[in-house]
Amino acid sequence: MVTVAYQGEPGAFSEEAARSFFGPRAKLLPKQSFKDVFEFAASHPSGFGIIPIENSVFGSVHQNYDLLLRHKLHIIGELKLRIQLHMMALPGVKTTNIRSVYSHSQALGQCEEYLRSLKKVSVVAFYDTAGSAKMIREEGKRDAAAVASARAARTYGLSILKRNVESNHHNFTRFIVLSARKTAAKSVEKTSLVFAVKDVPGALFKALAVFALREINMLKIESRPHVGKPWEYLFYLDIEASPDEVRVRQALKHIGELTTFVRVLGAYPFGQTIKN
Amino acid sequence: MVTVAYQGEPGAFSEEAARSFFGPRAKLLPKQSFKDVFEFAASHPSGFGIIPIENSVFGSVHQNYDLLLRHKLHIIGELKLRIQLHMMALPGVKTTNIRSVYSHSQALGQCEEYLRSLKKVSVVAFYDTAGSAKMIREEGKRDAAAVASARAARTYGLSILKRNVESNHHNFTRFIVLSARKTAAKSVEKTSLVFAVKDVPGALFKALAVFALREINMLKIESRPHVGKPWEYLFYLDIEASPDEVRVRQALKHIGELTTFVRVLGAYPFGQTIKN
Repeated sequence: MVTVAYQGEPGAFSEEAARSFFGPRAKLLPKQSFKDVFEFAASHPSGFGIIPIENSVFGSVHQNYDLLLRHKLHIIGELKLRIQLHMMALPGVKTTNIRSVYSHSQALGQCEEYLRSLKKVSVVAFYDTAGSAKMIREEGKRDAAAVASARAARTYGLSILKRNVESNHHNFTRFIVLSARKTAAKSVEKTSLVFAVKDVPGALFKALAVFALREINMLKIESRPHVGKPWEYLFYLDIEASPDEVRVRQALKHIGELTTFVRVLGAYPFGQTIKN
Repeated sequence: MVTVAYQGEPGAFSEEAARSFFGPRAKLLPKQSFKDVFEFAASHPSGFGIIPIENSVFGSVHQNYDLLLRHKLHIIGELKLRIQLHMMALPGVKTTNIRSVYSHSQALGQCEEYLRSLKKVSVVAFYDTAGSAKMIREEGKRDAAAVASARAARTYGLSILKRNVESNHHNFTRFIVLSARKTAAKSVEKTSLVFAVKDVPGALFKALAVFALREINMLKIESRPHVGKPWEYLFYLDIEASPDEVRVRQALKHIGELTTFVRVLGAYPFGQTIKN
C-alpha cells in the first residue's frame, strides 16, 4: 500500500487529487505545510507527495516552485482538478442565520462576488478551506459558514447552502506528484526543468532556441527570482517531449552551454483532467 | 502640488517609495487596496498611483500585473527600494515582555529565522506591516511587537527593539508609477508590454525572436494565466529600449503578426535604487 502526503486537512482539494491519482487503496497523509509534504517524500522513498503547482485563474503556486529547487525530488506525474467551491454550514442552519463566512483567502477571493451579495456577513480568512469546515463542525458554530469542497462537506457532515459560489467556473488546479525515486513511466510526454541563464543580452532567447530549433514544444515558462541575486531569475520550463529522445538529450547538452545551472525536475505523462 | 495614491497605512514601504520618487512636497494618499490605487490614478489625470510590482526575494506581485491589464494606465516611472524590517514596540517595552509579534504574512515569512529564536512568542498575521505598528500604538499593547519599516516606527512613536530582522538582506522591491496621462519622459530606457500568443508550437519563442533579432535586450518576462482560458498565458515583458526607436516600432508591428493581443503598458527611465 502506498502512502501519499498532501497539504491540508482531510477534505482538502489536495486530498481529492491524491485519491484520484492513486485510487481507493492508497493511504493519504495530511500535512500542515507544503514543506512537510516535500520532507515526507524526500525521507520515504516508497511514498509520494502531491502538491498544487498552478491554478488556471490565480497562476503558479510560487512557494512550490521554490521548494522543488530546494529538494532533490522527481516529478513523476500530474493531474488537473476542477475546483468547485460551495458554501456550507451545520445541518439546519439557514443562509439568513450566517453572520460570518470562513475560508482560505484565495478561495474567498474566488467567491468575492457572491459573498458581497450577502448582507451583514463578515468574511474571515482562515488557514485552509477544509480546515474552516472542520472548525465549524468542532466548535458547533450555528452563525457561520465555510467555503470549501463537496468532499469537505461530506467529511465534516455539513450541509451545502449554495453550490458553486466561485465566480469563474473555468477554475482548475494542476497538481504534481513527487517521489524520491525516479520511476520509469510507461509513456513520458512531458519534461520539467529549471535553469538560470548567464547575465548577457539575449540569454533567455538563446536558451529557449535550444528547444525551438529542435521542434520541441514549450508548454509553460515560469520565472522566479534567484534569491540573493536581485533582478536575476530562474526559469522553470515544461516541454512536450521525453528526456529519452535524442533531440531532448541534445537540447539539454546545448542548454548547459548557455546557462549557469540546469536541472531536470521530472518526466511524466500528461495528466488527466478530473471534472467531478 | 501632485497627489500620489499608495496602498497601506502611513509608514508603509509604498509611502516611502512615493516620497522618494515625488519629493517632499507631494501629497501622499493612503488607500486600502491596490485596486483603489489604480482607480484613483484612472480617475485623477493630474494625480499618480505607486504600486509594488516585484520583490527580489518573493517575485512578482501578481495581483498588480492583473490590475495593469484591467486599467488603461501608463507606467511612467519606477523605483527600487531596499526593504529593511525592524521589530518595534511601545517605548519602555523589552523583548522579554513580548508575547506576540504582528506583521503582514509576507514580512513575517522574511523574518522566520529570527522569530523562531524568540521563545514563547506567537506570530500573528496582520493585513499590513505599518498597520500592525499603528494597531500597537492605538491599542497601547505592551506585550506585543510589530515587524515593519523604520518609517512606521517614527510614524507611530515605537522604539526599535531589534534592527534588520529579515533573513535575506538582498531584499529590494521594485515600484512602478502609474498615470492616466502618457507623460513624455526625458530619457526613456525601458518599455513594458503585455501580449498573448496564438496557441501554436513555438509561439512564445517566435514572439521573443521579434526583439532578439533586432538586438533589443529583454529585462524581464512574467507569465500570468489568461483568465477563462485554462492553460493559456499572457506574457508581460520589459525591454531595454524606447518605443520611439525605429527598431522597437518595427518589433511591435512584427509581434502583432504573432499574437492575439498586444499592448504597451509604458515607457520610462531606469529607476534609482534607494538603500536608505
